[in-house]
Amino acid sequence: MSKKPNVLWIMADQLRFDYLSCYGHPHLQTPHIDALAARGIRFTNTYVQSPVCGPSRMSAYTGRYVRSHGSTWNGIPLRVGEPTLGDHLRKAGARAVLVGKTHMIADREGMAWLGIDPTSEIGVRVAECGFEAFERDDGLHPDSARQNWSAYDDYLVNLGYTSDNPWEDFANSGLDPDGELMSAWLLKNSRLPANVPEEHSETAYMTNRAIDFMTDAMQSDQPWLCHLSYIKPHWPYIVPAPYHDMYGPEHIVDPIRSESEKETDHPLLRAYQQARVCRSFSRDHVREHVIPAYMGLIKQLDDNLGRLFAWMDESGLSENTIVAFTSDHGDYMGDHWMGDKDFYHEVAAKVPLIIADPRPEADSTRGTTSDALVEMIDLAPTFMNALGCPPKPQVVEGRDLTPLLHGTDGFSRRYAISEHDYSSFEMARALDVAQEDARTVMIFDGRWKYVRCEGFRPVLFDLETDPNEFTDLGASEKAEHREVRARLEEALLAWSMQHHTRITVTPELLARQGKAAETGILIGFWDEAEYEASTGIPFKDLKPLGPPKAG
Amino acid sequence: MSKKPNVLWIMADQLRFDYLSCYGHPHLQTPHIDALAARGIRFTNTYVQSPVCGPSRMSAYTGRYVRSHGSTWNGIPLRVGEPTLGDHLRKAGARAVLVGKTHMIADREGMAWLGIDPTSEIGVRVAECGFEAFERDDGLHPDSARQNWSAYDDYLVNLGYTSDNPWEDFANSGLDPDGELMSAWLLKNSRLPANVPEEHSETAYMTNRAIDFMTDAMQSDQPWLCHLSYIKPHWPYIVPAPYHDMYGPEHIVDPIRSESEKETDHPLLRAYQQARVCRSFSRDHVREHVIPAYMGLIKQLDDNLGRLFAWMDESGLSENTIVAFTSDHGDYMGDHWMGDKDFYHEVAAKVPLIIADPRPEADSTRGTTSDALVEMIDLAPTFMNALGCPPKPQVVEGRDLTPLLHGTDGFSRRYAISEHDYSSFEMARALDVAQEDARTVMIFDGRWKYVRCEGFRPVLFDLETDPNEFTDLGASEKAEHREVRARLEEALLAWSMQHHTRITVTPELLARQGKAAETGILIGFWDEAEYEASTGIPFKDLKPLGPPKAG
Repeated sequence: MSKKPNVLWIMADQLRFDYLSCYGHPHLQTPHIDALAARGIRFTNTYVQSPVCGPSRMSAYTGRYVRSHGSTWNGIPLRVGEPTLGDHLRKAGARAVLVGKTHMIADREGMAWLGIDPTSEIGVRVAECGFEAFERDDGLHPDSARQNWSAYDDYLVNLGYTSDNPWEDFANSGLDPDGELMSAWLLKNSRLPANVPEEHSETAYMTNRAIDFMTDAMQSDQPWLCHLSYIKPHWPYIVPAPYHDMYGPEHIVDPIRSESEKETDHPLLRAYQQARVCRSFSRDHVREHVIPAYMGLIKQLDDNLGRLFAWMDESGLSENTIVAFTSDHGDYMGDHWMGDKDFYHEVAAKVPLIIADPRPEADSTRGTTSDALVEMIDLAPTFMNALGCPPKPQVVEGRDLTPLLHGTDGFSRRYAISEHDYSSFEMARALDVAQEDARTVMIFDGRWKYVRCEGFRPVLFDLETDPNEFTDLGASEKAEHREVRARLEEALLAWSMQHHTRITVTPELLARQGKAAETGILIGFWDEAEYEASTGIPFKDLKPLGPPKAG
Repeated sequence: MSKKPNVLWIMADQLRFDYLSCYGHPHLQTPHIDALAARGIRFTNTYVQSPVCGPSRMSAYTGRYVRSHGSTWNGIPLRVGEPTLGDHLRKAGARAVLVGKTHMIADREGMAWLGIDPTSEIGVRVAECGFEAFERDDGLHPDSARQNWSAYDDYLVNLGYTSDNPWEDFANSGLDPDGELMSAWLLKNSRLPANVPEEHSETAYMTNRAIDFMTDAMQSDQPWLCHLSYIKPHWPYIVPAPYHDMYGPEHIVDPIRSESEKETDHPLLRAYQQARVCRSFSRDHVREHVIPAYMGLIKQLDDNLGRLFAWMDESGLSENTIVAFTSDHGDYMGDHWMGDKDFYHEVAAKVPLIIADPRPEADSTRGTTSDALVEMIDLAPTFMNALGCPPKPQVVEGRDLTPLLHGTDGFSRRYAISEHDYSSFEMARALDVAQEDARTVMIFDGRWKYVRCEGFRPVLFDLETDPNEFTDLGASEKAEHREVRARLEEALLAWSMQHHTRITVTPELLARQGKAAETGILIGFWDEAEYEASTGIPFKDLKPLGPPKAG
């Protein structure tokens, strides 16, 4: 087994930060995730770089902001040539292995243009977001662009679940009393048990596959990062027995919403509230149907993680494996009169993050919480550090969390940023917003959450006096609020103007280039004496230089 | 010969807009360039996207801002996967051919990572900024990273100019009375004739090579763009006889500078003035030595273009070849107490641009001038249009100038933007500015030129009342100036926040994706009736969709 720590990076999909008992849910007990928190750090202020799967994950897997990697919404391919965490780790001799979902769309046009064979080793990695795909499963219909017939479909068929679409007909449907299939795409069917026993569910299957990978990996000294990426509790909201009826109305926490929010004069917020999914989740009977299933999915996930962690303990892997647990975004579930995700309230943009680091340097922080402002892109450099990979500041925009894990100084972040491209949404059509302008961006300083809405006035919440985000101060005339808006707008400009694409040059090379420019780029010297006086080099000894070689 | 027009895109290097007689120089007659203007449009407000070779050219060749392509200074490789004009034209069946300089540095690390063989056809194009290199010559020492021994070096050696470095020893040196080599890297040697006759100079050679290419191309129906990219009048400032003594002190126009500029309290402007090249060109005897050589180089270029245009007339090529003439940036030549380029005064950031379009649609604009605000990146989409290449708005950020060429509506631009990364400069070291913060960006609205200087107060010029840019209003307390600064800062933020990297998705695909999301992404439907009422599709007929396939 490797001497270096391995990294098991677990991601749930669409898991709200507050639907875990260690984050304070009063009725949903998640003892295995809580136990992970007890041996690590629980972060209370972690924000995703986009409140939607695809761009959030492309940021997580590259350590870069959405405006940097350019995959701004689901279905927008990650360009060929965008370096990923997996690429960096491989260069440092580690494996970067995928078990589950990435939401990656391959840039087939770019690959064709650059002559990269999609079936080659490099081509496969470019198409898999830099991962070695031990198991790719995006939890989607077999006819989607992101996923063809999957190994999980094969698994179901081999177990006798015969169908043209076993993922849909068994794992994501229920049965009515007459044995008719009831699709979990329709919310009214959420309370049915899934048409598959728990041990054959996608969550259980993916847990098994992670164990398969780690069992294989134990045969080698090569350190690894395994990204175990669960589909659930993302919709379709349906869970196998017995989880489907573990929770009832008495376990549903009140929605975080206020009548005053409905009175907003903000065109974009109004358009959100009028969007189908938001109208739907604003109905109490929808919440009452869906939330118990959502809670059951999380409970099932926790039980599977308990099984996984027990196996890791037994096999000795826990001793040298850093385990991180997080999510790609939350789920409104009717809060703020909204459904799904796609905006920046806490329940959508904030995610759980727990990191348990077995190294002795982390002993002082076990069982503690950190209120540091963290971005999802901070994980990539943290894992790179753990696996002995040199930092790549010209590419990776996240900040290494290792100082927080080890209780030392060195981590700071003044603002968290998140971006959203709503050009494919009904809000864009309702408001007649052009594709290139259908953008919002959040900047949060730990107290003030400011959302720039292109073409509309901004939105502002004061989390200190209004932790529920009921009062939009984006149009407030109070001097304090005007000042805060101006300050955050300026911070946004400063961030936006930073280098996001200067990725081909290292700081060391830039410094060498500066040095070379002093002596080798011969502009402005009058004569030999002036050259020698300025550079200390006799002119006759000079070998004029072009820019130093890259590399 | 092709029915479609061809494009001959001529670029001079470091040519100020005002050193041509058609742009008003009182002593430097450039009749051949003037004749081109007489049969086309002369643009009077064209700005480069960076006032320095490398990034300006990477913008020109990609049609994208510097913050988009990321090659922010000389020597920073253009990343693999950054689409170029040449790539777009090739897809449309045209050739994109280079004769001369690009300043491109290949992204060898990226190519290795993606398995692209640098010697393959694709690899060579990736390394040549998307061009098919009929002749690559960056006008540099044979030991530079950008250029090894060149075909021009061979040419010189074959003519008997024997040396380890014929480019330097013949084309870019003079001789003292004892026959000793006098390097043109030293400004005191600028008045010497180059150690090569005019007909063997790099300018003449490159003109010949363009004729060679066009002669070949006439054998085929395939339309082409030829980028004829001269090294000169870029330093080393030395020109063959008789051009070396055509101009003297009586032909030197007064410097555009004011004693008040020396009193600036702006730390960055002060640091510029204190930089070696600026101190050097602030000395009158340097100007008096260099400017006659600079003028001679331009005169020589004009004569070579006369030869080229005459050949094109004779061969019939002028009839269906759009000819564009421009430069990659200007040259301070002591104006504003500065030398070389690298800031945004008119003499550095504004360039000449002449486009002569032989098509009848352009008859109404022949011999006219246009004061439209134009960016260098506008050329790429203009050439794409001419060569029948569909627009690529998700990639190409410039705006098609064809409406201006044809005297129709449809072109507009409110702001011109230019960016500069001074991290490799002595100013960054003098001011102790971190590599990532050594950035400036100009936004110009046709009257007000605003320069955001990261970490320092902005610079502001009012070109209407102060066309010489002597008075920096960046700290002015006047309400009008405060308002202008706030407006341009906001415009800069709006520009900066635009999509610059969402390059893998077409507008059509985005629109389809939005449409598909309405019916195929099944979130928020309660039951079958709600689905059918909303989408018009019976639920049983539904084939749930993932995101539509890219392509």
